Amino acid sequence: MTNAAGQPIGFYFDLQSPFAYLGSVLIERLAPRYGRTVDWRPVLIGVTVLRVMKMQPLLTYPLKGPYLDMDLHRLARLHGISLKQGHRDDVVSLNAMRAFCWLKQGDPGLAVRFAQRMFERLRVEGLDITAAEVVADEAERLGVERASVLAAMADQSVKDALRRDVDAAIAAGVFGVPTFLVDGELIWGSDRMWMVEHWLQHRSWAPPAT
Amino acid sequence: MTNAAGQPIGFYFDLQSPFAYLGSVLIERLAPRYGRTVDWRPVLIGVTVLRVMKMQPLLTYPLKGPYLDMDLHRLARLHGISLKQGHRDDVVSLNAMRAFCWLKQGDPGLAVRFAQRMFERLRVEGLDITAAEVVADEAERLGVERASVLAAMADQSVKDALRRDVDAAIAAGVFGVPTFLVDGELIWGSDRMWMVEHWLQHRSWAPPAT
Repeated sequence: MTNAAGQPIGFYFDLQSPFAYLGSVLIERLAPRYGRTVDWRPVLIGVTVLRVMKMQPLLTYPLKGPYLDMDLHRLARLHGISLKQGHRDDVVSLNAMRAFCWLKQGDPGLAVRFAQRMFERLRVEGLDITAAEVVADEAERLGVERASVLAAMADQSVKDALRRDVDAAIAAGVFGVPTFLVDGELIWGSDRMWMVEHWLQHRSWAPPAT
Repeated sequence: MTNAAGQPIGFYFDLQSPFAYLGSVLIERLAPRYGRTVDWRPVLIGVTVLRVMKMQPLLTYPLKGPYLDMDLHRLARLHGISLKQGHRDDVVSLNAMRAFCWLKQGDPGLAVRFAQRMFERLRVEGLDITAAEVVADEAERLGVERASVLAAMADQSVKDALRRDVDAAIAAGVFGVPTFLVDGELIWGSDRMWMVEHWLQHRSWAPPAT
């Protein structure tokens, strides 16, 4: 293990993805062990998956959907991560992602605590995160003025900022979540922590000399 | 590590998938370390991906396609697996898969050597595996009578047998390749060897007691 300072690990997430939830827990466990911080970067899979790739949400495909749902709960169990709520068709993360984007401009640490709280609300408590009022409730509990959050979610400049973040993610090659960016290496999937860790250990993809 | 005898590991593959090629090498490395054999089971991703799921081949999607191609070569390098040829649109494995199916009926070990040779021909040598004549050439080099292979690939009962195998795979929940079936646990992806190994070690998804 190296503790040499390194660049932050980019963590691309969408609050409506259960796999991004798993990834958020796993990367925050892993990064500090290698002296890395995590830079949470918003993506909208409604844009990357549906509009750019013209796919459906993976969890809605025959065969693949049921497998991924089973696998999601299996991975959560294996990693000791609490997960009550799997895929829900009716959850839209747009308001929450705008709130995250706005919070990050002022206080990145607070934005992460907010995102973690929203993941927990949806995946552990099984409660919706779609409505602006609900987003404002949760931000308020973290000490943010309710009226400010509501105004931010409706603010065109915040909407534009999120759109720029999504465009930047797409330009970086991100299509799904979670995606990790480690020293320029793009790694997709909550099941790829072994690969993120391999990079953090070796900083190379050369086969281990054995 | 346990060396207790266990059921064979089901390995679902399609000779036209580069990820199945990686999986074929990795599972044959891993299984013997846990006293397991590998049961190679044919699938046609043209049926599961295109017809059942109504998806396109994953390597042809914008964003995801280029990522998967990059990742394929990265995984091969990491595992020390020779890979010259990535995705090719023009390769159709149907004849080769029929030949595999027929060979397996008579001699499963020979069928595996044939499949490994076809993977190598396509991925290491960069040569096509589509034409029946080419399939017969390769089988002949393994000591199989050329005329018999050609007849088998055109035989309705062999076509039906492959179709039954594909239907059985779909009934088992298989949608992509490689997929591994370990003691009833279905695990998809050449990047999931860590999970196959976890199961072989612990035979449980309970979180490790630490």
